[in-house]
Amino acid sequence: MSKITAAITGVGGYVPEYKLTNKILEGMVDTNDDWIVSRTGIKERRILNEEGKGTSHMCEFAVKELLKKTNTDPLSIDLVICATTTPDFIFPPTANLICDMVGTKNAFSYDLQAACSGFLFGISTAAQFIETGKYKKAIVVGADKMSSIINYKDRTTCIIFGDGAGAVLLEADTEGFGIQDSILKTDGSGFPYLHAKAGGSRKPITKENFDDADQYVYQEGAYVYKNAVKNMSEVASQILKDNNLTPNDIDWLVSHQANRRIIEATAERAGIPLEKVLMNIEKYGNTTAATIPLVLWDFENKFKKGDKLLMVAFGGGFTWGAVYLKWAYNNK
Amino acid sequence: MSKITAAITGVGGYVPEYKLTNKILEGMVDTNDDWIVSRTGIKERRILNEEGKGTSHMCEFAVKELLKKTNTDPLSIDLVICATTTPDFIFPPTANLICDMVGTKNAFSYDLQAACSGFLFGISTAAQFIETGKYKKAIVVGADKMSSIINYKDRTTCIIFGDGAGAVLLEADTEGFGIQDSILKTDGSGFPYLHAKAGGSRKPITKENFDDADQYVYQEGAYVYKNAVKNMSEVASQILKDNNLTPNDIDWLVSHQANRRIIEATAERAGIPLEKVLMNIEKYGNTTAATIPLVLWDFENKFKKGDKLLMVAFGGGFTWGAVYLKWAYNNK
Repeated sequence: MSKITAAITGVGGYVPEYKLTNKILEGMVDTNDDWIVSRTGIKERRILNEEGKGTSHMCEFAVKELLKKTNTDPLSIDLVICATTTPDFIFPPTANLICDMVGTKNAFSYDLQAACSGFLFGISTAAQFIETGKYKKAIVVGADKMSSIINYKDRTTCIIFGDGAGAVLLEADTEGFGIQDSILKTDGSGFPYLHAKAGGSRKPITKENFDDADQYVYQEGAYVYKNAVKNMSEVASQILKDNNLTPNDIDWLVSHQANRRIIEATAERAGIPLEKVLMNIEKYGNTTAATIPLVLWDFENKFKKGDKLLMVAFGGGFTWGAVYLKWAYNNK
Repeated sequence: MSKITAAITGVGGYVPEYKLTNKILEGMVDTNDDWIVSRTGIKERRILNEEGKGTSHMCEFAVKELLKKTNTDPLSIDLVICATTTPDFIFPPTANLICDMVGTKNAFSYDLQAACSGFLFGISTAAQFIETGKYKKAIVVGADKMSSIINYKDRTTCIIFGDGAGAVLLEADTEGFGIQDSILKTDGSGFPYLHAKAGGSRKPITKENFDDADQYVYQEGAYVYKNAVKNMSEVASQILKDNNLTPNDIDWLVSHQANRRIIEATAERAGIPLEKVLMNIEKYGNTTAATIPLVLWDFENKFKKGDKLLMVAFGGGFTWGAVYLKWAYNNK
């Protein structure tokens, strides 16, 4: 088999030490542990609470771990894509900062903004560079410091989001492992239901217009919930069909972690049994672009070479997608 | 020749009507027309001064013009990448908003952040999706509403930047036209010299820390100037060498428009005669990701099928690169 595919050959991750538990949130907004757990499945989230630290500082740990675990020379990396909604700065790209921190000095790099679907869009993009033969090794990071755009007075959003970073190494493979197919979708008409109202070019923040609430995540939860389940289950079923697979052929469903009930409803609609559904939302909440690589990180030792993984995501934009891949290695 | 290449098959553009002339700037900061023209080559810039309008509103005009000129069905577009430093919102992606505005409902889309090199990184990325055969038609937009992140009390930056949007259609080609090669580079250690200090996850803007200057473009001009000339001329020479070309083989140098003197010094070092160097900086200033597509837009009628174009960019990050392409059509 001479066709080049892009295979995930390693995973790194990082979450900050500080745990924002449901108990602590009970003292901040009108909510309680029972309500949060029953509606979202989340028990705690990690928060990067060190002054002056941004998303890149979490990525640094994740990528250094990845390079070490895979025994990879940083200078051999051709491309670094950072999927994030919370870059360190408006510009330059956070990916560039990461490259400087970890020593991938020969890589070119940029940030990709596709909200919660950023990691799937990122690995699909990096895969193209590998499949054409242009590059051999790429790192895709999904990372967000969601606490930097969360209103901790809004009980509908502050209970959901957390901070974290996950990274994968993608390498050229000629034995058929790695990314087999992807379906990627967007619908900009969904933006009013999940966005930040201020802080971009449409409404730059000024001293005069400053309104604390406007720069933070705004979400109409019920509408997003409905669209997430519908769209993720549709692309999951479509990618199975396109690849002549049944739900039984899939070993693991790796979903974006936004809400336990969304994940379970998506799996049910797509016909994937719950024992194949991987979840860590109880520990980290919704870390936006970091959820999927952090699931890979937490469950890496479950995956065997040849396992068929179905990854699905949905998020702001709206953006959504499914990636089907064959796992390329047995964990050491 | 059966290899698939990605060819630019059309160009669209848009600049706002309002002209911020050097004369007007003389009344805002301590500067004058002679100084600005002799140091930068800029006579005026366009500013999107309508309340509530963001980068997407300029992109809408550029992409609609592109679709019309090329007689392209919006539903045939597979991918839309928007390279921008000034998205409408922190999230979702501006590319999604554009798709909704212009009716490219079957496209998937995302934003790419690579500052002034965003357009070259964007077309190189879209080209991979076309070269693998995954997609047939992509639109890459380079657009920035720089006025949303410029401090009009800082005479070193406010004289340079302007607003605008440019877009190209990339289509699969089997006759050898389009993108032939690209060299893309980043160096995150350059970030302190050109960035925005606040408004990202490292320093989110709060009522308490609000400092008008910190959310705007900060630039150490002399250092950036030196690196821009050195790095752009190096990748220009390298891509010529890699493709067995001499400067004489190139028909047109299409450079990022940051400063007339940077462009001329880069051309000189790379050995490209000035009559092959295209410039429109006097009309628009530095529109960041929009400069290169706006040069293509302004000079489209000069290009003949088969012309060899060398495109170079340098910007915040640092990011830089060179793309060599063969023009695919004669203008109607």
